[in-house]
Amino acid sequence: MSSVKVLGINSSPRKYGNSYKLLRIALRAAEEEGAGVEVLHLYDYEIRPCKGCVSDRATKCKYPCIIDDDMKYLYDKVLSADALIISTPIYWFDVSGQLKNFIDRLTALENMILFDGRSWLEGKVAGVIVCGNDGGAVHVASTLLATLNDMGIHIPPWAMVYYVGKDDVLKVKDKLLDAANLGKIIVKAVKLLKGIKTWYDPSMLTRVESYWVREVLREIETTPKVPKSK
Amino acid sequence: MSSVKVLGINSSPRKYGNSYKLLRIALRAAEEEGAGVEVLHLYDYEIRPCKGCVSDRATKCKYPCIIDDDMKYLYDKVLSADALIISTPIYWFDVSGQLKNFIDRLTALENMILFDGRSWLEGKVAGVIVCGNDGGAVHVASTLLATLNDMGIHIPPWAMVYYVGKDDVLKVKDKLLDAANLGKIIVKAVKLLKGIKTWYDPSMLTRVESYWVREVLREIETTPKVPKSK
Amino acid sequence: MSSVKVLGINSSPRKYGNSYKLLRIALRAAEEEGAGVEVLHLYDYEIRPCKGCVSDRATKCKYPCIIDDDMKYLYDKVLSADALIISTPIYWFDVSGQLKNFIDRLTALENMILFDGRSWLEGKVAGVIVCGNDGGAVHVASTLLATLNDMGIHIPPWAMVYYVGKDDVLKVKDKLLDAANLGKIIVKAVKLLKGIKTWYDPSMLTRVESYWVREVLREIETTPKVPKSK
Amino acid sequence: MSSVKVLGINSSPRKYGNSYKLLRIALRAAEEEGAGVEVLHLYDYEIRPCKGCVSDRATKCKYPCIIDDDMKYLYDKVLSADALIISTPIYWFDVSGQLKNFIDRLTALENMILFDGRSWLEGKVAGVIVCGNDGGAVHVASTLLATLNDMGIHIPPWAMVYYVGKDDVLKVKDKLLDAANLGKIIVKAVKLLKGIKTWYDPSMLTRVESYWVREVLREIETTPKVPKSK
Repeated sequence: MSSVKVLGINSSPRKYGNSYKLLRIALRAAEEEGAGVEVLHLYDYEIRPCKGCVSDRATKCKYPCIIDDDMKYLYDKVLSADALIISTPIYWFDVSGQLKNFIDRLTALENMILFDGRSWLEGKVAGVIVCGNDGGAVHVASTLLATLNDMGIHIPPWAMVYYVGKDDVLKVKDKLLDAANLGKIIVKAVKLLKGIKTWYDPSMLTRVESYWVREVLREIETTPKVPKSK
Repeated sequence: MSSVKVLGINSSPRKYGNSYKLLRIALRAAEEEGAGVEVLHLYDYEIRPCKGCVSDRATKCKYPCIIDDDMKYLYDKVLSADALIISTPIYWFDVSGQLKNFIDRLTALENMILFDGRSWLEGKVAGVIVCGNDGGAVHVASTLLATLNDMGIHIPPWAMVYYVGKDDVLKVKDKLLDAANLGKIIVKAVKLLKGIKTWYDPSMLTRVESYWVREVLREIETTPKVPKSK
Repeated sequence: MSSVKVLGINSSPRKYGNSYKLLRIALRAAEEEGAGVEVLHLYDYEIRPCKGCVSDRATKCKYPCIIDDDMKYLYDKVLSADALIISTPIYWFDVSGQLKNFIDRLTALENMILFDGRSWLEGKVAGVIVCGNDGGAVHVASTLLATLNDMGIHIPPWAMVYYVGKDDVLKVKDKLLDAANLGKIIVKAVKLLKGIKTWYDPSMLTRVESYWVREVLREIETTPKVPKSK
Repeated sequence: MSSVKVLGINSSPRKYGNSYKLLRIALRAAEEEGAGVEVLHLYDYEIRPCKGCVSDRATKCKYPCIIDDDMKYLYDKVLSADALIISTPIYWFDVSGQLKNFIDRLTALENMILFDGRSWLEGKVAGVIVCGNDGGAVHVASTLLATLNDMGIHIPPWAMVYYVGKDDVLKVKDKLLDAANLGKIIVKAVKLLKGIKTWYDPSMLTRVESYWVREVLREIETTPKVPKSK
């Protein structure tokens, strides 16, 4: 049994488009690197919109989510994976609405920090694949990466693979190579980081407040207030 | 001598503002974790705008950059660091122009991929700190993280610390804690990933093109073309 | 009967939150300026995810959309409005998934350009309201505005109202004032621009290709190729 | 003498690249629509980074800026124009650093709202042109448009022209057409909106606070607090 599990998430309604093709190449490389891989097609599942319970009271949002739909199944898939590769088409300079609902609903895992001391996504590794005919690829990819990172996820080098154009991406050499590397790099990173599930340490606050704040203030007092004129 | 070097980059013209304060807290935590740290104030240096040589011919852009200014010094500082923490104020929903010039000029290091087979920034670890009175923090942070990642840099969990508000950030507990964790997490990640400077592997192309593309095509042919009606 | 119709779209699941409150203030100002106003709560409707037909063949996407859900009703509301004010909470640095599905499905109106010579949204006026406890407001607002603009919609000055914080926004003076101005400015802009439904003129291509391209080439030939060294 | 003045701002170091070419086409169309046009090459000027005086005290930032450089000349050019078309290459998913410095320095005009009751950019009309080989066009364009809008500027329909690719854009029909339309639409919008320099009305606050806030509260009290379960 392979020790590293990579979950591929296809957020396009089409199972034969460029987003899916690059995802497949990435997963193939992950397999070569020794991982077990699986693909989920988000459009095969019913994912209802998040009700924003967290805005009423932070502790109202927790796993399991109160909404009764296919996220039950998808949460388990995410939790048991070491790494995620999310692939999405570009819909109006952003992810598909279906993927956005999926992301919003992941809050129930991230918010476990309030109950369990850590985000249940912390320490995983992720990358993204974004394809579209028109512009917006980097806009989508950077938002996704920032979101995943802010849920506690590690983003390894070159984690953003994007293709803007109308050609069959299986014929675009540099994008194939980027996707293959994404799969490989993600598995490599999982192996190196493995075992460390907790990164954020709330106990640091005491020494920050007791000592470091004072040190910074002392240093600043000795610094001239006006920027050097040039 | 400490084995991990963290370079803090303050992109604010002010050495006593919130961007700088959080940077200092992060670096203090990095020290506690065993790193050697250093701060550079970008406004102390002359950084001329990138001339975009790469757009004329990809190989025209390489280290050392043809522009004769203080980047010579800054390039060396970046190259000798294992990790970067970039701190910036928010100027019109974006980084300061001074930081943007610095980022643009890093192209000379990233573009060494064409000469040396790897980006000279590859394998480093980075995080960002963004402070402002008004909106835009996440917009700035996500763009910075995506940029650094696309230069080959690791983004460890919780690498985006931002504060939106007018208070003295040294009194905002959760932001102090975020900054301290950023410093610690970055050093932890450097230690785990250390020694591995090359992540992207151009030699994968042969097997992608020879085998994997065909596999994907075969799989897609057996998939129905019309999305399930729901 | 008032001649200007403003449609307010609340994309929050909650009808008593900050997003909704600012929307109400904006609509109140629109009324004062003489408009007829209406509010829709997106969470009251079933909006299924876009199937991306346009990616299979551009002309497959047209009004009415093939998906049979509440968008039928919502399309009519949008079409009969002169202006839109879209209000959204921030869910992971982005709009709510429910709003994203709504935006994606508007493609059926925008894509009428292929059948009717113009986007059915062209010439309308719009603004956005974004509220959240955490960061991301500007990221959401700028993406929304760019999207609406790229559907042919006019964005008047100060069209982006955002509040980042946990207070009751009805007590935050400058945000109340921003929202009120948004409502007023939008109606003012509708009045000035009214009657002009077509802005994009495809017939310009002939003279661009026949004359202007040649003029530009001629000018460039007489310009030195190397940027001035400084 | 033509009554509408359009200022084209080329933010690329190269005067013969795609950014410049599309800008020229847009300006040509503006001329056809009756405008007087002028082009500035930002790289011909020395633009020092903003010192962020506004962060020390809001009223410290005003026209004329305390920095003594070529912005003196550029401020006058901007002030005397009715419309701006800003063209930029994509440098790391963002504008060129030179353009960023220019944008940052415009704060001195926008911040006149504190002295003069209005942003000195209010009521102008603007559009953007973004070109690059790689991704990031929409990310750049949406940030620019949001920034300009938040300085008080109108963004007319289809104000975002972008080209991602390596070809000579003078051969790309749909982009030529987009650029030509941008020039024409901007002049059309200036004509319709002309004469109205003040859009934001601070005097609304009294009636918002005295009446509208209470109306909203009353309405919300009669609304059920729990979102409908679906």
